[in-house]
Amino acid sequence: MEEKSQKAPEPVKASIQPLYASFDLKLLEPYLPHHSTPTSARSQPLFPHVTLTYAQSMDGQISLSQGTQTILSGPETKAMTHYLRTRHDAILVGAGTAIADNPGLNSRFADENGITSLEKQPRPVILDASALWMPRGDEKVFELGRKGEGKGPWWLVGSKELRDIKADGDDHTIKFISQGGSAGMQVITLKGHKDWQEILQILAREGIRSVMIEGGASVINSLLEADNQKFVSSIVVTIAPTYLGTGGVVVSPRRTGETNEARLKDVKWVPMGQDIVVAGRLEHKSLGLRSDCAEGTNDKNSHQQKPL
Amino acid sequence: MEEKSQKAPEPVKASIQPLYASFDLKLLEPYLPHHSTPTSARSQPLFPHVTLTYAQSMDGQISLSQGTQTILSGPETKAMTHYLRTRHDAILVGAGTAIADNPGLNSRFADENGITSLEKQPRPVILDASALWMPRGDEKVFELGRKGEGKGPWWLVGSKELRDIKADGDDHTIKFISQGGSAGMQVITLKGHKDWQEILQILAREGIRSVMIEGGASVINSLLEADNQKFVSSIVVTIAPTYLGTGGVVVSPRRTGETNEARLKDVKWVPMGQDIVVAGRLEHKSLGLRSDCAEGTNDKNSHQQKPL
Repeated sequence: MEEKSQKAPEPVKASIQPLYASFDLKLLEPYLPHHSTPTSARSQPLFPHVTLTYAQSMDGQISLSQGTQTILSGPETKAMTHYLRTRHDAILVGAGTAIADNPGLNSRFADENGITSLEKQPRPVILDASALWMPRGDEKVFELGRKGEGKGPWWLVGSKELRDIKADGDDHTIKFISQGGSAGMQVITLKGHKDWQEILQILAREGIRSVMIEGGASVINSLLEADNQKFVSSIVVTIAPTYLGTGGVVVSPRRTGETNEARLKDVKWVPMGQDIVVAGRLEHKSLGLRSDCAEGTNDKNSHQQKPL
Repeated sequence: MEEKSQKAPEPVKASIQPLYASFDLKLLEPYLPHHSTPTSARSQPLFPHVTLTYAQSMDGQISLSQGTQTILSGPETKAMTHYLRTRHDAILVGAGTAIADNPGLNSRFADENGITSLEKQPRPVILDASALWMPRGDEKVFELGRKGEGKGPWWLVGSKELRDIKADGDDHTIKFISQGGSAGMQVITLKGHKDWQEILQILAREGIRSVMIEGGASVINSLLEADNQKFVSSIVVTIAPTYLGTGGVVVSPRRTGETNEARLKDVKWVPMGQDIVVAGRLEHKSLGLRSDCAEGTNDKNSHQQKPL
């Protein structure tokens, strides 16, 4: 299983560096989930509010190459990202991002009451249908969990792939999974491969009312495709005034029609430091919903197709 | 020469539709050429002020496919483009853009004194080192010239390629070139292939103090590369909140190093309608100048490396 090997995570720094907002938090309010809003009689929504968020260069790239982390945005938008994290029940990233970045996936946002409490921390979710992530328990997300600075992660992993791991996988990972409860990880198996309906229904079933999806490119591109746009409630993208140049990792959905694959509406541009942040909703190209999904989507003209 | 054939241009509309600014013109002033500024003792600068300007999607594309025109930006940024045109002595586009878009390359910007006068119209320049453009005299740029609504174009064409055209080329084009003066076109031959030093020196020699470079992607990408960044005085890019999706024409310079190929500095973001406009200058990665170019570039620390 050599292709699944990954470098050891960097040690977590002892001190927490809080991040303070240097911008008006209200500007993004219309794009954020509001959990207290009363909706239908259903106590549990079919789907969570999905906020798609990432930082890109002018040439639409999120990193210089596959598997490397490229810092694109400045400190102002970093604080914004950490603020957004406090506003969602979960953060989801793909396995590639988990491997490349070893992200903490918690929030260090601080307001006048201090840094984000554990209760308000989002649930880290690693989407890993192909079982590329080989958690050992010393990743940053677990360290933060042990220190009470973040919640333990959920690993959404293909059921067949999980069986394969257990059959002949990485010793550390097998041992770690069997000890899972103690490190705070929950393993959830998936039937499909990047089937957003399944993924989001699982999250809703587990009590997640809102999820911030942060990357990587294949996760984002898949949600920007016409057929999946109905699952996206809002988009918050930071653009840094730089060109990475050809050869990097590009955010650009597969074009499934003859025109623009995705369009934003209700657009707001917010300068932050050297960067710009664009917030908006997707004009849904494909409103055809699967029959088993129709219950939650009575109002096809509403921006918010997924009742919360 | 079938590959050089091109579709007939659309007829020019009889009425001029003036474009009015819906934004504060002063916002872009720091990025625009100032021809009246006294500089050195030289009466003629070595290079013109170069403003790179184009409109792109979120995924860094300027059109859905090679050879097609894609309207990306809204009416506000269109008015801005026409205002910028009045502020430059010339507009340069590559032959591919001339063929695909049949552009007028004049300005319809209007202020309280009315629409841009012929005197203030920029000189259209078609950069065509490979002689792909086969002008016949009925293109929009000539129509506008005949109507006094724009200046006649300059065709910068490879000298060898021009000889080939004259030897065995398209009858209409040969006839047209021989009548060139009457249609207002000036043919200027190039020694190199997309050698910006030569191109810009030719323009300066012909009295062009400022040139707005509008596309297409290969022209823009070439100027964003490290070695050519020294020729770019400022950048004005419109970003439309849409994703064209994979397969379109991408603005992304060839990466010649290990890090970001180009970075903007002195950045200003200006929302215009649904779009955002970013203005800035390039941090010059490569300051190595050719010896024959050194005279005009004494102040390597200045933003404005090319005295005007």
